[in-house]
Amino acid sequence: MRIGKITTPHGIIHTPAFIFCATKGAIKGVTMEDMRIEQSQIILANAYHLMPAVETIHSLGGFARMSGWQGPTLTDSGGYQIFSMGYGSVSEEIKGNRHFQNTKHNVKITEAGATFKQYTNGNLLFLSPEKSIEIQEKIGADLIVAFDECTPYHVDRNYTEESMRRSHRWEKRSLMHFNKLELQKNDETLPQALYGVVQGGVYEDLRHESCNFINNEDFFGQAIGGSLGATKVQMQSVVATTMQYLRKDKPIHLLGIGRIEDIFNGVELGIDTFDCVHPTRLARHGGALIKHGDADIDTSHINLRNHRFIADDTPIGKSCLCQTCRTYSRGYINHLLKNQELLAIVLIARHNVRFMNDLMAAVRQGITSNTLQQVKKMWLS
Amino acid sequence: MRIGKITTPHGIIHTPAFIFCATKGAIKGVTMEDMRIEQSQIILANAYHLMPAVETIHSLGGFARMSGWQGPTLTDSGGYQIFSMGYGSVSEEIKGNRHFQNTKHNVKITEAGATFKQYTNGNLLFLSPEKSIEIQEKIGADLIVAFDECTPYHVDRNYTEESMRRSHRWEKRSLMHFNKLELQKNDETLPQALYGVVQGGVYEDLRHESCNFINNEDFFGQAIGGSLGATKVQMQSVVATTMQYLRKDKPIHLLGIGRIEDIFNGVELGIDTFDCVHPTRLARHGGALIKHGDADIDTSHINLRNHRFIADDTPIGKSCLCQTCRTYSRGYINHLLKNQELLAIVLIARHNVRFMNDLMAAVRQGITSNTLQQVKKMWLS
Repeated sequence: MRIGKITTPHGIIHTPAFIFCATKGAIKGVTMEDMRIEQSQIILANAYHLMPAVETIHSLGGFARMSGWQGPTLTDSGGYQIFSMGYGSVSEEIKGNRHFQNTKHNVKITEAGATFKQYTNGNLLFLSPEKSIEIQEKIGADLIVAFDECTPYHVDRNYTEESMRRSHRWEKRSLMHFNKLELQKNDETLPQALYGVVQGGVYEDLRHESCNFINNEDFFGQAIGGSLGATKVQMQSVVATTMQYLRKDKPIHLLGIGRIEDIFNGVELGIDTFDCVHPTRLARHGGALIKHGDADIDTSHINLRNHRFIADDTPIGKSCLCQTCRTYSRGYINHLLKNQELLAIVLIARHNVRFMNDLMAAVRQGITSNTLQQVKKMWLS
Repeated sequence: MRIGKITTPHGIIHTPAFIFCATKGAIKGVTMEDMRIEQSQIILANAYHLMPAVETIHSLGGFARMSGWQGPTLTDSGGYQIFSMGYGSVSEEIKGNRHFQNTKHNVKITEAGATFKQYTNGNLLFLSPEKSIEIQEKIGADLIVAFDECTPYHVDRNYTEESMRRSHRWEKRSLMHFNKLELQKNDETLPQALYGVVQGGVYEDLRHESCNFINNEDFFGQAIGGSLGATKVQMQSVVATTMQYLRKDKPIHLLGIGRIEDIFNGVELGIDTFDCVHPTRLARHGGALIKHGDADIDTSHINLRNHRFIADDTPIGKSCLCQTCRTYSRGYINHLLKNQELLAIVLIARHNVRFMNDLMAAVRQGITSNTLQQVKKMWLS
């Protein structure tokens, strides 16, 4: 485990850091001012979702400027979403939350790239390494990601291997095209930095091979992608295996993972950054993240819809300094949720954002002062 | 026309003022911190909507404290909503926006009070002057309103007259019960102030009679309610007639009216306060309020869903200092609306709130410096 800094044209990211998902260019329910006030460092958007709007975003000054965020940003390549749509919702499976049987493919893959249906209107679209890099260049995030295929757990070893090798070729093409575009940039265009992605599913030899590939290419950072297994234990094991083979002199990102326990596990293995929709998605369902010490039961979040909060005039987090906890009670938010008031989501999402940022600050402090185990005990049920 | 101050236990309201609708205890899409930052003075909630939660609100310290607003608040009596539900949606009709034929009654009215179905679960509820005052006392707003029947335009003169006289009796009972409860309050309970409501529909002699009644009762303030006619012209005429007969040494509120042109008309007649859901409801449909000078067409709002804003990197209001206009462009909000992002509503609602507060500040300045006509020209298309 380690602390570090990633320097971008839009500011410095202190790691370990959590990256919040602004999928379509907005954090669901939280203004960019509040993201800053609640001490967020970096947000990400999805190239796949922003594809239809890429020219608009470019003409409005790129993702950081257009969204009003102004700080460091990351975009993914679009690959994850394409294959997620293709295989059905792959996200839960990667995290080991369910066994997935759907084998219907809505994606056609060739060596050139992937053809798929656009989620908004069903139009056929084609995405290749070169096209993904061009889209990400137009969106203009500080950190961008090479185009790969995200293989889910249910595909077999042969397919995982074949797909991984194609992903390596795609990532090489991504890097070549990225370098070409960077060279063409004039002084007014900000430089970007490219992450490669380790694939290989749950197979140690494939992860090893993929790490060797990524280690030897000139990527700025390294991301761990693909299926991490069917259970939390397997995920932890696959990440540990991958970290064993991955070079450590570059920033390392764990794609799409960011529950509290996953963060502690990842940090202990040396992961620098995490991203996950969990904090804002949870908020939309009335769930507020809490420290172990604030819970009367063994949980990492409370559901504020629960009737037991009806007359609770304490804040969500007993020691939380977020704007929500400084002003609003659990009882009021319970009232808002029961009345389907939009404000409930805004208030909880803002708390959850601050919670993650406070957690990461405590993790960094724990690493510095060699007290991470005590920190873990305070935050994790 | 006049400027003034209304002093409440939660602060001073500088009039003419706009009162924002927090129907169920929350402004739709705007946090209470942002309401303050955008210079709001007072918010209102509806006793009818809060009836199921009244004990909770009381136990959480009352509306101002529970909601985190902390500033001046008003509750209505519940009467408007009961009869609005009873007659169908009466709101648009009162404002002269449509002719309404529905005569289905879901409300049973006796001298004692009104029996109606609760909007959440269909249970039969009974509301009387005494019960409305007790509910409003528990909710604990600074300004509260006597219980009356809000008659719509389509009822005949006979019914309007009969209903008005019953409303007068109900209002007298409201006042008596209010005075009794105020006397029972201990030092720790904040005093409240009661508004009477002028009824009488579109009939000058009835409005005259109703003003005489209200003028002679010991209400803190006076509200103009009931049907104001079928057209904007008639509304203006009914309000003018009413103002002719109403005593001027008390605060005067115009119930449920608050479009920009209505505010200028009302202010010119001496109205002190206005309330309307328009600013936040408009926001939920993508509509942003703009000054005449900021519009390229003859309009008081722009619909940010419109494709013409796709690459517009200017703020909603050219000289607006709200948090939205300081950070976000019309183009970004257009992108958010197209993507059904919650944040769009938050951003527009916040702008519309500031717009109304800036408008009212300009109106007060215009009255003070005798330049209201110039102010009107700048703000109104």
